[in-house]
Amino acid sequence: VLAAVGDRMAGKPGVAARLFDALARARVNVRAIAQGASERNISVALDMADATKALRAAHAAFWLSPQTLSLGVIGPGKVGAALLDQIAAAAPRLKREANLDLRLRAVAASRRMWLDDAGDSAQWRSLLTDSTEPCDLGRFASHVQAAHLPHAVILDCSASDTVAAHYAGWLRAGIHVITPNKHAGAGSIERYRAIRAAATSGAARFRYEATVGAGLPVIQTLRDLLDTGDEVHSVEGIFSGTLAWLFNRHDGKIPFSALLREAHAQGYTEPDPRDDLSGTDVARKIVILAREAGWGMSLDEVIVENLVPASLRDVNRQEFMQRLEEFDSVMLGRLQQATRAQKVLRYVARLDRGGKAQVGLVELPREHAFANIRLTDNIVQFSTKRYRDNPLVVQGPGAGPEVTAAGVFADLLRVAAAVGAPL
Amino acid sequence: VLAAVGDRMAGKPGVAARLFDALARARVNVRAIAQGASERNISVALDMADATKALRAAHAAFWLSPQTLSLGVIGPGKVGAALLDQIAAAAPRLKREANLDLRLRAVAASRRMWLDDAGDSAQWRSLLTDSTEPCDLGRFASHVQAAHLPHAVILDCSASDTVAAHYAGWLRAGIHVITPNKHAGAGSIERYRAIRAAATSGAARFRYEATVGAGLPVIQTLRDLLDTGDEVHSVEGIFSGTLAWLFNRHDGKIPFSALLREAHAQGYTEPDPRDDLSGTDVARKIVILAREAGWGMSLDEVIVENLVPASLRDVNRQEFMQRLEEFDSVMLGRLQQATRAQKVLRYVARLDRGGKAQVGLVELPREHAFANIRLTDNIVQFSTKRYRDNPLVVQGPGAGPEVTAAGVFADLLRVAAAVGAPL
Repeated sequence: VLAAVGDRMAGKPGVAARLFDALARARVNVRAIAQGASERNISVALDMADATKALRAAHAAFWLSPQTLSLGVIGPGKVGAALLDQIAAAAPRLKREANLDLRLRAVAASRRMWLDDAGDSAQWRSLLTDSTEPCDLGRFASHVQAAHLPHAVILDCSASDTVAAHYAGWLRAGIHVITPNKHAGAGSIERYRAIRAAATSGAARFRYEATVGAGLPVIQTLRDLLDTGDEVHSVEGIFSGTLAWLFNRHDGKIPFSALLREAHAQGYTEPDPRDDLSGTDVARKIVILAREAGWGMSLDEVIVENLVPASLRDVNRQEFMQRLEEFDSVMLGRLQQATRAQKVLRYVARLDRGGKAQVGLVELPREHAFANIRLTDNIVQFSTKRYRDNPLVVQGPGAGPEVTAAGVFADLLRVAAAVGAPL
Repeated sequence: VLAAVGDRMAGKPGVAARLFDALARARVNVRAIAQGASERNISVALDMADATKALRAAHAAFWLSPQTLSLGVIGPGKVGAALLDQIAAAAPRLKREANLDLRLRAVAASRRMWLDDAGDSAQWRSLLTDSTEPCDLGRFASHVQAAHLPHAVILDCSASDTVAAHYAGWLRAGIHVITPNKHAGAGSIERYRAIRAAATSGAARFRYEATVGAGLPVIQTLRDLLDTGDEVHSVEGIFSGTLAWLFNRHDGKIPFSALLREAHAQGYTEPDPRDDLSGTDVARKIVILAREAGWGMSLDEVIVENLVPASLRDVNRQEFMQRLEEFDSVMLGRLQQATRAQKVLRYVARLDRGGKAQVGLVELPREHAFANIRLTDNIVQFSTKRYRDNPLVVQGPGAGPEVTAAGVFADLLRVAAAVGAPL
């Protein structure tokens, strides 16, 4: 197949290694090989069917940086678009300083997708809009994992459970998976275990730092504590910027319903504020942390206080928004009770050793760290064997497209480091 | 050299790649190779002089995990000893769960060293004590970088500038260097640049997370912000647990000198408390962060407020400890001035975009985050383009052997990930 390695490579140690490594990665079955003493020739016999794949792989091995990552992004919504913009902006610097070659090769939305045979990836917005290619995640994944590029990464910025169902298969095929989507981490424990098993047995990584605290270093910090042999006693925190804002503002002067309307109008809540007020989103984050800590917990095991009055849980969104006043008397009562005890109300999640978890409204002393965070901040406290007297604390904005995309991007850098980029 | 690969490997794709990769790493010059169609035989012709090296490398390639790290620890003091204990305790789990094989092969103290030909590494304390081998960092490094192990890491837990002078050479030789020693990061800018250049040009990594905030994720967090394209506007914080304790406690009821004596007796200060009070140690951390941010700054460019009265700067330690009362009137005056303005005193470091830095005592509003940290905590606030309204905050104990060792260990895990461990 390769008649001559060429003068450029001749005699350099490692040429054969690089070639065979590339052929192995491309899953080319080598039948026989021979290398002359001049080291200018390496002959490889292989099946005819593998010839194109082998040529591409050999070419890539000698002409591309080994830190070339083929990227496919699913879900070009707010987070996905911010991520694509961040990658485009940072790529030249990463290329220059870390020899990291990030190549956007596919973008998939729910209905259509764009694969890069057709145009310049910087124009992904218009290329995707103009594309008539229906979304097919099988074809998408094969395209991202092109034989001629050494590594493939799928970045799932959708909020889709259907996409999460593909992760284990992609990982088994050697495609790295990175996501801010909580469905895999907090979904069925069987699927989670299959994803973990696929990631640990092979060379592909599964990372999802941005599922908790967006760009804040939460999951990596927990992993480092555990991997260096610390013992986690508890993880406590405020994991919802929306609920943080509501209870930081709720002082009895303005009815809770008015604050809720303001938060909704400002875009601080989900389109249906019940998605925040039910506590399920916070519970999902706690499940993710519990599983990271090795406590194989499921969402239904978390004790969750749903702040939505029973009368408003089953009505449609429009009716819900009209009847927000039904929150007011209960919330005012809770606030007055806390105030009488010289305390404040906060919506807090707590995870204890072994996987006992609860999420709900608690009364805290005014000087408590959780009582003094900035309006929409998240805060996480790790109490461990080493951080026993004083916990390790991470705090800051825990939502928003820019910081969430940055969390996904940081995971991508971790994958780049794992394939050799000096990061 | 290799007459038969053996049944275990026969026919598996990638066998040739693995062999040639191992030979290339061991710098064996391959003259000619041939592989039969059965894939049971790979013949390699090489120089007689390389034969032993090649055999060891081939053996390692097939019988050792590629994530085998040969470790050498320098400076088995409090941090070094804690690190060795942590590694020994965590190693079985890392082996089981991440196929990571950590092998302690050498420990060097200032006078003597132990190299592992002679005994079980778990017994390093007695082996080092019994060793008659004088410390020789050249021999130490060659021993750690054994030809038959794929990767070598030197963990420098000394506080020695002499050891830091070896880093660039070790990195160029392909040895990873990890350290909580601030001499390289905050020392001469030329040496720092040589170390960086050696790390970026080759495959070996230089990591020093534990130099700032011990086990707190500070440098990695800054790197991720920068590498994902964020822009750092300022980094502010309290970087000395000793000074945090002193100013958290100093309320005018007890003289400053009495607090200082108590802190010294409790072991919160350095043996000579002037090493804390001068602010130099805090300034070193700021220099490290400035350089990470790409602002090539030196220690003498930091504006540092030295809290030691001029009259006590040049006396010996014993006399200094006897004359601590000379702090009292100045410190009380500063405190009263702050109190009149409804403020508190904190020893704060601030780094601004481009590399303007100052370290000193400042008056802060009582509700400021820095005014409400736990007694000996460190706190770091990153204000960036993305974290503009609310900064990203990391807080917790920033000193002590256990958490410092954990910071070094976390860096070691990052190196392990870079050579393929699924971490």
